[in-house]
Amino acid sequence: MGSQGDVRNGEEENMAAWLVAVNTLKIQPFKLPSLGPYDVRVRMKAVGICGSDVHYLKTLRCAHFVVEEPMVIGHECAGIVEEIGSEVTHLVPGDRVALEPGISCWRCSYCKQGSYNLCPEMKFFATPPVHGSLANQVVHPADLCFKLPEDITLEEGAMCEPLSVGVHACRRANVGPETNVLIMGAGPIGLVALLAARAFGAPRVVIVDVDEFRLSVAKDLGASETVKVSTNEEDVAGEVELIKKAMGESVDITLDCAGFNKTMTTALNATRPGGKVCLVGMGHNEMTVPLTPAAAREVDVVGVFRYKNTWPLCIEFLRSGKIDVKPLITHRFGFSQKEVEDAFETSAHGGSAIKVMFNL
Amino acid sequence: MGSQGDVRNGEEENMAAWLVAVNTLKIQPFKLPSLGPYDVRVRMKAVGICGSDVHYLKTLRCAHFVVEEPMVIGHECAGIVEEIGSEVTHLVPGDRVALEPGISCWRCSYCKQGSYNLCPEMKFFATPPVHGSLANQVVHPADLCFKLPEDITLEEGAMCEPLSVGVHACRRANVGPETNVLIMGAGPIGLVALLAARAFGAPRVVIVDVDEFRLSVAKDLGASETVKVSTNEEDVAGEVELIKKAMGESVDITLDCAGFNKTMTTALNATRPGGKVCLVGMGHNEMTVPLTPAAAREVDVVGVFRYKNTWPLCIEFLRSGKIDVKPLITHRFGFSQKEVEDAFETSAHGGSAIKVMFNL
Amino acid sequence: MGSQGDVRNGEEENMAAWLVAVNTLKIQPFKLPSLGPYDVRVRMKAVGICGSDVHYLKTLRCAHFVVEEPMVIGHECAGIVEEIGSEVTHLVPGDRVALEPGISCWRCSYCKQGSYNLCPEMKFFATPPVHGSLANQVVHPADLCFKLPEDITLEEGAMCEPLSVGVHACRRANVGPETNVLIMGAGPIGLVALLAARAFGAPRVVIVDVDEFRLSVAKDLGASETVKVSTNEEDVAGEVELIKKAMGESVDITLDCAGFNKTMTTALNATRPGGKVCLVGMGHNEMTVPLTPAAAREVDVVGVFRYKNTWPLCIEFLRSGKIDVKPLITHRFGFSQKEVEDAFETSAHGGSAIKVMFNL
Amino acid sequence: MGSQGDVRNGEEENMAAWLVAVNTLKIQPFKLPSLGPYDVRVRMKAVGICGSDVHYLKTLRCAHFVVEEPMVIGHECAGIVEEIGSEVTHLVPGDRVALEPGISCWRCSYCKQGSYNLCPEMKFFATPPVHGSLANQVVHPADLCFKLPEDITLEEGAMCEPLSVGVHACRRANVGPETNVLIMGAGPIGLVALLAARAFGAPRVVIVDVDEFRLSVAKDLGASETVKVSTNEEDVAGEVELIKKAMGESVDITLDCAGFNKTMTTALNATRPGGKVCLVGMGHNEMTVPLTPAAAREVDVVGVFRYKNTWPLCIEFLRSGKIDVKPLITHRFGFSQKEVEDAFETSAHGGSAIKVMFNL
Repeated sequence: MGSQGDVRNGEEENMAAWLVAVNTLKIQPFKLPSLGPYDVRVRMKAVGICGSDVHYLKTLRCAHFVVEEPMVIGHECAGIVEEIGSEVTHLVPGDRVALEPGISCWRCSYCKQGSYNLCPEMKFFATPPVHGSLANQVVHPADLCFKLPEDITLEEGAMCEPLSVGVHACRRANVGPETNVLIMGAGPIGLVALLAARAFGAPRVVIVDVDEFRLSVAKDLGASETVKVSTNEEDVAGEVELIKKAMGESVDITLDCAGFNKTMTTALNATRPGGKVCLVGMGHNEMTVPLTPAAAREVDVVGVFRYKNTWPLCIEFLRSGKIDVKPLITHRFGFSQKEVEDAFETSAHGGSAIKVMFNL
Repeated sequence: MGSQGDVRNGEEENMAAWLVAVNTLKIQPFKLPSLGPYDVRVRMKAVGICGSDVHYLKTLRCAHFVVEEPMVIGHECAGIVEEIGSEVTHLVPGDRVALEPGISCWRCSYCKQGSYNLCPEMKFFATPPVHGSLANQVVHPADLCFKLPEDITLEEGAMCEPLSVGVHACRRANVGPETNVLIMGAGPIGLVALLAARAFGAPRVVIVDVDEFRLSVAKDLGASETVKVSTNEEDVAGEVELIKKAMGESVDITLDCAGFNKTMTTALNATRPGGKVCLVGMGHNEMTVPLTPAAAREVDVVGVFRYKNTWPLCIEFLRSGKIDVKPLITHRFGFSQKEVEDAFETSAHGGSAIKVMFNL
Repeated sequence: MGSQGDVRNGEEENMAAWLVAVNTLKIQPFKLPSLGPYDVRVRMKAVGICGSDVHYLKTLRCAHFVVEEPMVIGHECAGIVEEIGSEVTHLVPGDRVALEPGISCWRCSYCKQGSYNLCPEMKFFATPPVHGSLANQVVHPADLCFKLPEDITLEEGAMCEPLSVGVHACRRANVGPETNVLIMGAGPIGLVALLAARAFGAPRVVIVDVDEFRLSVAKDLGASETVKVSTNEEDVAGEVELIKKAMGESVDITLDCAGFNKTMTTALNATRPGGKVCLVGMGHNEMTVPLTPAAAREVDVVGVFRYKNTWPLCIEFLRSGKIDVKPLITHRFGFSQKEVEDAFETSAHGGSAIKVMFNL
Repeated sequence: MGSQGDVRNGEEENMAAWLVAVNTLKIQPFKLPSLGPYDVRVRMKAVGICGSDVHYLKTLRCAHFVVEEPMVIGHECAGIVEEIGSEVTHLVPGDRVALEPGISCWRCSYCKQGSYNLCPEMKFFATPPVHGSLANQVVHPADLCFKLPEDITLEEGAMCEPLSVGVHACRRANVGPETNVLIMGAGPIGLVALLAARAFGAPRVVIVDVDEFRLSVAKDLGASETVKVSTNEEDVAGEVELIKKAMGESVDITLDCAGFNKTMTTALNATRPGGKVCLVGMGHNEMTVPLTPAAAREVDVVGVFRYKNTWPLCIEFLRSGKIDVKPLITHRFGFSQKEVEDAFETSAHGGSAIKVMFNL
């Protein structure tokens, strides 16, 4: 049953997925789990590639998670409902839905207190040993499948997942119409953070990167100002001044979407007393940063782990036009062995690729 | 005028204070500022020595503050009102009061939004170039002088200042009846944090130090359990296990009252997902700590700078008996050149000294 | 299955319960539901009578809930685990547990956002058509069964339910060491609110009632002061003055545990600007109260519906001795037709009865 | 000194103001107070008429404030700095500024804790016995004078005051991108609440009134939907249904900008469980409303008193174009006895007048 995140192995016609197996990608049939009373079966239509997918593929691990068995990857997805469980009332076959990837236990204190993203029993698409969603069908709890309004495409629906990271960071840091936001890093995460910060009403969003192209994309997506920086740690003081000048007003919140010693040092030093730094990126694990002087200015550091309750808000942002994710989708691929390989190649290489999307 | 924090130099009978001057202590007359309409003149009766006083005395600096002119030190104090300004209505001569040391501007956005401790214009006792309160008299804004209930001694009143650090940390970290608290460091700050955490209702408070004596004091003051640790950074993993075992339940909040790489690493690793680490101590400036994995468990790091609105609560804790600060006062001295020197010697040496108090 | 709140009718040996049926009480066998993988079967040992039980018995309704089929009443309960489902890991047969009565859906936005008490699909003991727990056995989700420490009795465990009402009210109103609390009404709810407010650290708790005996009980339970009032609405102004005098300091929070026009008017007028009034009691439905002047002093009115995540805290309060509920249990009865009738008679009559408890 | 809110009587050339005196308006010279070190003298350029001004003029009272001496009215204003006090650093003569009308004490616990709007010592323009700002010059604390960006007109600056009411209500009720908002009443306050709610990101704002014209204005200003209602209390149930239908999604927050029994009943019944009702309007003083059933759904009632820290945000909303207040200014008058009388006549009559503005 999908709601228990069982492994989906076996054989059945029409079933297929890419499997990570000893650093290779393979389309392979597998058996769908049976449909529980609160589940739906969804025909996948759009699946995006995330950095973690590439990571699993290359290294068979991501953070402390290790792939030990062949595993379906993918977790940014949307599709069309084909079958509903007996107790499902808010969806019907034919509905277009975006899928939230994590199934939490609802019995632990985290779940009960509204922090289900911290549930220690979480079963999450493509986090070993749970299979992901880069498959032509999945069975998933209906309450994690969110109906898309008519004018939102399935690709936009799949983008709710990366966008959720930005939304969760903005919520954690309390971004709103009274907070100017600095974003460190204009990669895919920095860009969704930018979109989310604007949608939460941040009056000014300054974004920082080492790459001119990325900054130009950020500017097009609505950054108030961009600041090009170096990778040299000795430049921090000067760059903080440039950032403050670009902001014009106080830096109330910084979202560090890179997560390196240098970006975090810049973040801590640039943020005003009483402000917040949200650490989103995970560049360095152990960090050497001026934490004490920041703490002595009551600059708080908040972290993020995935997201919670973000799909309805993401869909609302898309519906109202406050966020347009379409410019982020730079490459599209079909569902053949060759195209899959090309897609991962494209995603891994970076360059002009922001989001690589499969159309199944 | 006291409310503008003017320097108090000059000559006048009965005026005296210890001055820090090129690493020496000297009793020296100085002229009191005139009494403004909202000020009171207070005869000092009890003044405690803080680590920062010792620091200024030895090094002429503390954090980024540098002593350039002779400066009265001291900021933990209580005394008796002798004269009140024309607009003062809540105090009369003879009232026993504890003094909050910082005078903020009330015109900046920090002051107006309830974060007056972050006021950039703050004039604070014994923070250069503002004189402190180790003097036989001071002129101070009446609204920063808090009347002591009859059964609270002036020494206890002076202890409201260090206690405020613990209270502010507990508020920043949201300590309450639903949060088990770990305290790193059983020095004076760790001990007031312990007292505050108990008063805020923390069901379990585990305290950690390298020193057996300090731990035994902490135990006497109400720590649920104590854990002795080493200074060896390689022991962190094992010590985290000992701490978790000592707590029995989850470590919801950690107050790092030491502020070294090792204590902060322990704090970050011991605290449960979604918990908070409050960085109070300032052992290391730049820190090398596993910040990213902590952030990825949504363990937030909050800082503290002094305190705000703490005196009424501290006095209430003393009045109700929820906190007893008397055991912290280990040494007392009078107000002669010789005793002053001995007092600072005692305070600087540590050993069995927790709080050294002057009785003027 | 208990976790779906199915009706428990049928026949089976050893099964029994009191049923409400057309205003009568009857012990009658019924069939236990089967045990799901996450359920436990509990042998009931202590069940308290709540005002709502009496209400259902007398009128077959409570608020907008109507009893249409015979229904087991009772929802304040504790017992001993006899059987556990296949997936249950935190309990074993023989464990003594207190039961949280409500089973929420965990699929709606309320559940997911940490407000499961507002779940529209809630299945709650003895709220029609869901059976209650005044039965010798129940099947219930294991995560709603909280293990009692050794030194806590089963009767105390059953008291976690009424205590939860006080705890939830204190949380909603943000009671803590910085808030003086006024409680309107010294009935069972007012008394648990008093116990909770003390445990949350309220420095002063003043309680108000029309009945001398109840006030004397409240005083014994730790009220700082008591104020006897009339039922005459014209006395409000004078009584507010008496209350303020009894408090000595500002009334920061008022818990109206009666819920009548007069008590709410007193609550709104007595509470300081920026304070909170929590409406707990439900004396009047439509209310005529000076809401506008209260709002213009930013006195907020917060409501409560049952509780959420309260059992662990209640058990902690009992364990630590911060709360002693034993004095509230004034009457005890056994489990025969005659005793049941006597118990409800006693509970309905009020008088010296605070909490009437069955020992099964 | 302005900062002490002294009365400004006397004679001096070029000084003038309308005085309320036994229900008449009169232009009359008065003496400006002297300029303190933290004050500025401002040449008034735009002053709006508020309902309270009209109220004072007609009845010599508003809420519990009574006019006993001739008093300058007016408190919605902007002008040009002509002279600055010796300690003023952020303004220079020639700066165009909007004025926040209330001078709080900064010594009480409300001020210190960030709730200066609740300061019991508040001296507020045109709240007896403090003079208002419908004068050609005023002396005012510099920190309450907010510099306008170049592209914001002085009339827009004056509108920051009524807009602040909407902003404060939205903050108190926590309006944001995740809350659909219902507004009861499309008068001047309802309309600024609408503008503020949109600027805070509310995805849907439904507004309700008895008047078609007002609703059409609201629609033009950005209301998602409008609902015309009656004054008949028996229509509440049906109108709540219409409102819910108009909203489409849940009503998360209601701002009652009318404040009558009927509007508040509608507000309480229409708002979803766990939502908030903010009582802004003050139609009825004592209210008869279904408070208990609302509280039992945890619908909280929050109040507002004036505002705090709103000018910077209002100016930011004007600067960014998130709010356009110009359509609210429907009538303009000059500064002669005749025009003043006409202006108040126009404002009092309602009709198509939303905001009546003086250009001095």
